[in-house]
Amino acid sequence: MILTQADFLKNLKYDEHGLIAAVVQDITNNQVLMVGYMNKEAVAKTLKGPFVTFYSRSRQKMWVKGESSGHTQEVCEIYYDCDADCLLIKAKQNVAACHVGYRSCFYRKYDFVSQLVSIVGEKLFEEEKVYSKK
Amino acid sequence: MILTQADFLKNLKYDEHGLIAAVVQDITNNQVLMVGYMNKEAVAKTLKGPFVTFYSRSRQKMWVKGESSGHTQEVCEIYYDCDADCLLIKAKQNVAACHVGYRSCFYRKYDFVSQLVSIVGEKLFEEEKVYSKK
Repeated sequence: MILTQADFLKNLKYDEHGLIAAVVQDITNNQVLMVGYMNKEAVAKTLKGPFVTFYSRSRQKMWVKGESSGHTQEVCEIYYDCDADCLLIKAKQNVAACHVGYRSCFYRKYDFVSQLVSIVGEKLFEEEKVYSKK
Repeated sequence: MILTQADFLKNLKYDEHGLIAAVVQDITNNQVLMVGYMNKEAVAKTLKGPFVTFYSRSRQKMWVKGESSGHTQEVCEIYYDCDADCLLIKAKQNVAACHVGYRSCFYRKYDFVSQLVSIVGEKLFEEEKVYSKK
């Protein structure tokens, strides 16, 4: 099976808000960095590169990841799933994906034995120093 | 920061349909296998283990992944993100995650140079042989 870019874009299924989920994975070690959402325009912009662009549900606008912090994600590979309602993007992450200061947004782990949650990521920066302009 | 199981569950944010997204990653090689959705009950069931349980949006019911195919996902590790609206589950995947026959649901890749989509996964089974009872 070979699909053109136009057919690929036509196949993607957006939810009732016009959004599709996108998992971002670190190209260097396959760590899952974050999950964001994209509208059609953000998908088209991401396909053009070089950086991953999302649609912020809270701010209700397009958002080039890293535009204020400098913590950009350079798009390397794009995959989509069997239902065509989710994207997987492998990217080169600059500094950290998480605005709280961790490399990955998934820095909290639930432990089955102790039944407790603890932080497993290493803090790379202090939020207020990077996002103080907000 | 240490959280109890009760606080962890209380912190999770569900969307307007009462669902939270869950990325499933292969514990053996960090391949992203699929993204599914869970309601509160499915999260609680997954935490009890041993298998990942989702809520099927199309069938509108809870669904132990692999209950009909035998392609179960044994829960190994659970993480959640900074916004507490997404889970990341590392699991031991039996056979394949995708109902179409591939190990991962993300078996189609968009190539930036050719601007074409092609299949990059290896087909492990024929859909109609495994899911014929549906």
